[in-house]
Amino acid sequence: MTLRLLISCPDRRGIVAAVSSFLLDRGANIVSSDQHSTDPEGGTFFMRMELHFEQPTPREGLEAAFAADVARRMEMDWRFADAEAPKRVAVLASREDHCLLDLLWRRRRGELAAEIGLVISNHEHHRADVEGFGVPFAHVPVAEPGGKPAAEAAMLELLAGRFELIVLARYMQVLSGDFLARAGAPLINIHHSFLPAFPGAQPYRRAHERGVKVIGATAHYVTEELDAGPIVAQDVAHVTHRDDVAALERIGRDIERTVLARAVQAHLDDRVLVHGNRTVVF
Amino acid sequence: MTLRLLISCPDRRGIVAAVSSFLLDRGANIVSSDQHSTDPEGGTFFMRMELHFEQPTPREGLEAAFAADVARRMEMDWRFADAEAPKRVAVLASREDHCLLDLLWRRRRGELAAEIGLVISNHEHHRADVEGFGVPFAHVPVAEPGGKPAAEAAMLELLAGRFELIVLARYMQVLSGDFLARAGAPLINIHHSFLPAFPGAQPYRRAHERGVKVIGATAHYVTEELDAGPIVAQDVAHVTHRDDVAALERIGRDIERTVLARAVQAHLDDRVLVHGNRTVVF
Amino acid sequence: MTLRLLISCPDRRGIVAAVSSFLLDRGANIVSSDQHSTDPEGGTFFMRMELHFEQPTPREGLEAAFAADVARRMEMDWRFADAEAPKRVAVLASREDHCLLDLLWRRRRGELAAEIGLVISNHEHHRADVEGFGVPFAHVPVAEPGGKPAAEAAMLELLAGRFELIVLARYMQVLSGDFLARAGAPLINIHHSFLPAFPGAQPYRRAHERGVKVIGATAHYVTEELDAGPIVAQDVAHVTHRDDVAALERIGRDIERTVLARAVQAHLDDRVLVHGNRTVVF
Amino acid sequence: MTLRLLISCPDRRGIVAAVSSFLLDRGANIVSSDQHSTDPEGGTFFMRMELHFEQPTPREGLEAAFAADVARRMEMDWRFADAEAPKRVAVLASREDHCLLDLLWRRRRGELAAEIGLVISNHEHHRADVEGFGVPFAHVPVAEPGGKPAAEAAMLELLAGRFELIVLARYMQVLSGDFLARAGAPLINIHHSFLPAFPGAQPYRRAHERGVKVIGATAHYVTEELDAGPIVAQDVAHVTHRDDVAALERIGRDIERTVLARAVQAHLDDRVLVHGNRTVVF
Repeated sequence: MTLRLLISCPDRRGIVAAVSSFLLDRGANIVSSDQHSTDPEGGTFFMRMELHFEQPTPREGLEAAFAADVARRMEMDWRFADAEAPKRVAVLASREDHCLLDLLWRRRRGELAAEIGLVISNHEHHRADVEGFGVPFAHVPVAEPGGKPAAEAAMLELLAGRFELIVLARYMQVLSGDFLARAGAPLINIHHSFLPAFPGAQPYRRAHERGVKVIGATAHYVTEELDAGPIVAQDVAHVTHRDDVAALERIGRDIERTVLARAVQAHLDDRVLVHGNRTVVF
Repeated sequence: MTLRLLISCPDRRGIVAAVSSFLLDRGANIVSSDQHSTDPEGGTFFMRMELHFEQPTPREGLEAAFAADVARRMEMDWRFADAEAPKRVAVLASREDHCLLDLLWRRRRGELAAEIGLVISNHEHHRADVEGFGVPFAHVPVAEPGGKPAAEAAMLELLAGRFELIVLARYMQVLSGDFLARAGAPLINIHHSFLPAFPGAQPYRRAHERGVKVIGATAHYVTEELDAGPIVAQDVAHVTHRDDVAALERIGRDIERTVLARAVQAHLDDRVLVHGNRTVVF
Repeated sequence: MTLRLLISCPDRRGIVAAVSSFLLDRGANIVSSDQHSTDPEGGTFFMRMELHFEQPTPREGLEAAFAADVARRMEMDWRFADAEAPKRVAVLASREDHCLLDLLWRRRRGELAAEIGLVISNHEHHRADVEGFGVPFAHVPVAEPGGKPAAEAAMLELLAGRFELIVLARYMQVLSGDFLARAGAPLINIHHSFLPAFPGAQPYRRAHERGVKVIGATAHYVTEELDAGPIVAQDVAHVTHRDDVAALERIGRDIERTVLARAVQAHLDDRVLVHGNRTVVF
Repeated sequence: MTLRLLISCPDRRGIVAAVSSFLLDRGANIVSSDQHSTDPEGGTFFMRMELHFEQPTPREGLEAAFAADVARRMEMDWRFADAEAPKRVAVLASREDHCLLDLLWRRRRGELAAEIGLVISNHEHHRADVEGFGVPFAHVPVAEPGGKPAAEAAMLELLAGRFELIVLARYMQVLSGDFLARAGAPLINIHHSFLPAFPGAQPYRRAHERGVKVIGATAHYVTEELDAGPIVAQDVAHVTHRDDVAALERIGRDIERTVLARAVQAHLDDRVLVHGNRTVVF
């Protein structure tokens, strides 16, 4: 049995000793361990461990003991995660297919520890591709104007409580705070610029107008404030005056799909801890 | 004799034929040539040629003939530049020395086709380093509050009309529009972020607060609007949650000096053409 | 009508003037132009032009005139290529599907000016994916030992004379010199290392053993000498001690598919000129 | 008092608990911790911890107790290193000055936890620069032919036993195995290619001949086999057909100085553990 242990707590002396002694007593082998402290004096401490238990170890008892023996005293936010259970994931997409298909391909390839259980799009035309990967597809159009509440309600019906992660793979509708609150899972979005540059619509067009020499993409958790949530992954590419908006979009697609996959992978592997509006990515 | 010819004009048929035939008739060999058109239909055409004349060719006659035979008809902005004459350059710096020393070292190394004739700083403490490279140093402090006009006047006294390029190598004072108008040369600034993200002060601190996963630097021509002039060069580096503000500053210094050198080099080699708020960098 | 003109010849004075005057007389507008000289004194000159003819211009007459008026005198290797005719391409693949599917997806997306007319694999299992893109699939197994000549003969039957480019998208069989000679088209291969490091088999394993901190991929034209043909495109990624061979392979796949696509795209756009064992990529 | 603890040992259960409990008992706060295992089943385990002791803690007693209580039982290779004591470093250089000056500048800047106590060159002409940084300079020429043993003897006289790290900052003489054995400190070399490509002499020339599209640099520990020691850091830059050998050298200089500085910095911070011919860089 392989578990992951995720911890954040006020930094203080003895955390590692307390955790590792507890685990040693339960017969756990620490396969890997990462830690980070924002400040050894009064900062926040983050830790991720991958643990192998040679004997079957009931989760409930382990968690109760960890809470009582270690976590309470250290004021920890913590959770154990099952390293062997792929997470249930839903993907939302609009017209662009590169991020969507890349995720489906990586899943099939075994790169993502996920069970992609549903793809929702406001357009019908990805159905054949998605179903070709053996994944259910739902078409939830957004009637304009005023159709967003109905569309969100329809999506919540399909999503709420059924998934552990929702990926916005170039889903181009802004989601309401109410939707986010009720979706029942964190959302990762891919934005097609190196945020905080060019938030909002048409970033490649604006990048071209500004004459930048690099373009990029940003994968971030979705919060109510548009394109302002905690950043998980970013990457960029160099461009020149020769690249018009269409070329920026084409170059950008390669960055977007890679950055989104990297962020999703990190999340699925329980390697992302959120701290205020920032992330620790182990 | 080696000259460079820089052209921008409305795109139309026959430009290359007209220019190259003119040059062939004058005995010029086209050593290299770059061109770019924003749009073959009604866009702007840019060209840079490096020309070798086997016979001495008086500049004045050449230019008069080019104007009469080619440029007027084609509505060209154009200039010939002497490829063998290093440009006269002044450098302005504040406390940070990495960009300043890197430029001086590259000049000595022969990487920059420049004669660095003056370094001005609002701090005294780079004098020994600068003079060690055999370059004159002037200390022009900025008395606070209200001392900026006097400082700018003192700098204009030292600069105006004597230089072909002014480089702001981490000069941390905002220069007035009046100064820019009277400086008599284009100014290249290095800003320590990947603009348009984090214009203004303390970009590394703000990058850290925003939790970005890349940081960068931008070399741009200075215009009245702060950090909004045409971008010449940009580069970035990946960072993680482990990098605090001091680490970002350290990583950033390596990017800043390289990006600034690349932009200065391009300008000195007459490879930058400005088009609105954008650049063509051949 | 849009044509491309590709030229290589001994560098000398007057080439650009001769070519551009010829084109002006034929009513061609030079949409873009790139040139390169290995040495203005006695080197080789390369040029690529994109030409728009407002009037229909018979290719045959144009070519005959160009040969007579310009090319012969300048000792040019040259050709016109039709910018609007997608090239006929065949793809060979083995077990790995990432490069193959990426090319098919980019073709569908409109990123590649190609008509992918055939996919051949020594394994059957990509058939559904390939046919899902509407592309014919042929299974040509290589019986071991000794089955290679028969397999090559079968492939030549399918390929010879029908294609303008053959892409080895992780095709893991070494092809004979005889096959290359008779294939009737240039071949581009993707090798999973930054050549000349780690030619031959299992480059990721050997990269891991050597403890390198970067891995990469190389797209090159295939010659008889294994992994030694002219390089068209390369890229790399940073890796650490944490990345085992499987991780290197996973990271490498993202590089491979991007590098191969970039090289294929350049070839399809007639932007690659071969010069000895090197390439000029405009 | 801040110490670093470096450990490598056979991986087994209980290492982290044993070490962290030991440290907790001695009043040490674990400021940061990194670990790596080549394989949780029977592999090698590596760990680096940064420890803060609030009370003065005699090193000798600490080390004796650690050996007795933890290290012996776990079959550890281990050492404590003083985080506050800058290491004594000597630098060897030949004609090229970019790596040498960059190290001296970073030292002055406070980026390197080193006391650079000596620069040796087989050329006289860096003396003024080096002494300008307040660092002693020794000129040890290598008389050709046959002068290498005498030069090595002279250098050993200056070096042996006095330094903790010797940096070859583009020192272009091959050092004998005898010299390496007697130098009394590890040596880090910067090689101007992305090894294992282009070991030996004139890598940029050979890179140009091979027509590669990336060039790079490699910092590695020096072993008897030329350019084959454990790699600490590597980086690359993209190049094109436009870059002749001189351009590759110029671009390469920027990579070399950065890569060397990164490797030296990692070594000085005790972040490098050697494992066979590979490195773990925390």
